[in-house]
Amino acid sequence: MADLVDALAVSAPHRQRLDFLLAAHDLTAVLRVNRLLNGSRCETSAEHSWHLALGLLAIARELDLPLDLEKALRMALVHDLCEIDAGDVSAYDAEARAAKAQAERECIERLAASGIALGSELLALWLEYEAQETLESRWVRVLDRLMPFVVNLSNGGQAWKDHAITRSQVVRINDPVREHAPELFAWMLGRIDDCVARGWLREG
Amino acid sequence: MADLVDALAVSAPHRQRLDFLLAAHDLTAVLRVNRLLNGSRCETSAEHSWHLALGLLAIARELDLPLDLEKALRMALVHDLCEIDAGDVSAYDAEARAAKAQAERECIERLAASGIALGSELLALWLEYEAQETLESRWVRVLDRLMPFVVNLSNGGQAWKDHAITRSQVVRINDPVREHAPELFAWMLGRIDDCVARGWLREG
Repeated sequence: MADLVDALAVSAPHRQRLDFLLAAHDLTAVLRVNRLLNGSRCETSAEHSWHLALGLLAIARELDLPLDLEKALRMALVHDLCEIDAGDVSAYDAEARAAKAQAERECIERLAASGIALGSELLALWLEYEAQETLESRWVRVLDRLMPFVVNLSNGGQAWKDHAITRSQVVRINDPVREHAPELFAWMLGRIDDCVARGWLREG
Repeated sequence: MADLVDALAVSAPHRQRLDFLLAAHDLTAVLRVNRLLNGSRCETSAEHSWHLALGLLAIARELDLPLDLEKALRMALVHDLCEIDAGDVSAYDAEARAAKAQAERECIERLAASGIALGSELLALWLEYEAQETLESRWVRVLDRLMPFVVNLSNGGQAWKDHAITRSQVVRINDPVREHAPELFAWMLGRIDDCVARGWLREG
């Protein structure tokens, strides 16, 4: 890729801008645990990022959330850019997630220092998301959990079955929903129990 | 899909919200002409929508665009939802695009009338995008052209070669860039000529 762009003799600052846009596009190559509605393949992190941002907009209107929506949408768009270098790790694999944290931060710092105008804002948005102290960062996290959950409901719990996921694992990774959106979590709990009853999730 | 959600006994208004989020997710099944950077498959409309929105944010900062960024991002997130029913049609196929216009509008009207709080806003954003009269709608359109263009640059013009695309076809579909972002278009023209010289695009 870099060779081809080199061959096109793109000069700075266009070169930095182009490099960033192309690096970002590689989130289309990062596969998540979740499957598409039709089950045909895993969802990419690029698709998840769009679905999350759209879901945030829809839920903000449904619940009339008192958010800085612009900031929340910007955060949603960049929240997974750290996966360009670090890849996706299952939300159910706590050990791998801890090991990945440093790689994620280094990836964002690399992008932020690449000479693009968005650089410092990108780093600030990502750090705010990770810190989970603001309303916007909390709702982005809630949607980061809710969207894969509803996709799992729609395709018969394929990702849960693929990985023999238990009820308590799903309850645990949805802890941000319980904390920040308790009514939504109550609805999820009802659905989780339905899914256990249907054998889509294991008990325990 | 509907059967599974029915089986979970989700009641209104949760049902309308869930239906919308799941219908939207089907943009992960709409394949575009463009290929991924690694050429392995075509990009989905969900991936394109995310890359466009992120690119819009990055370019808005690079060029210090005097946009209502929040509106532009909302518009970017929903601009291709019309493809849920209508599918994607190549930007190079003018006849098929004209035939698709009615199906696209009906799709957006169906989603807008589905009982979600976002409904009327969704229709208004899409109509504003189609009308191309506001700065936000024009920049979303510019990015809708620019992002596939840079992806094509990066993978050796695969989509252009696949479909034997000519220089004049690329110039024509980038007319919104020429009109609204002439400096960006001048840069694109230089790259287009590079691509013709390399045989990635046909002359004519």
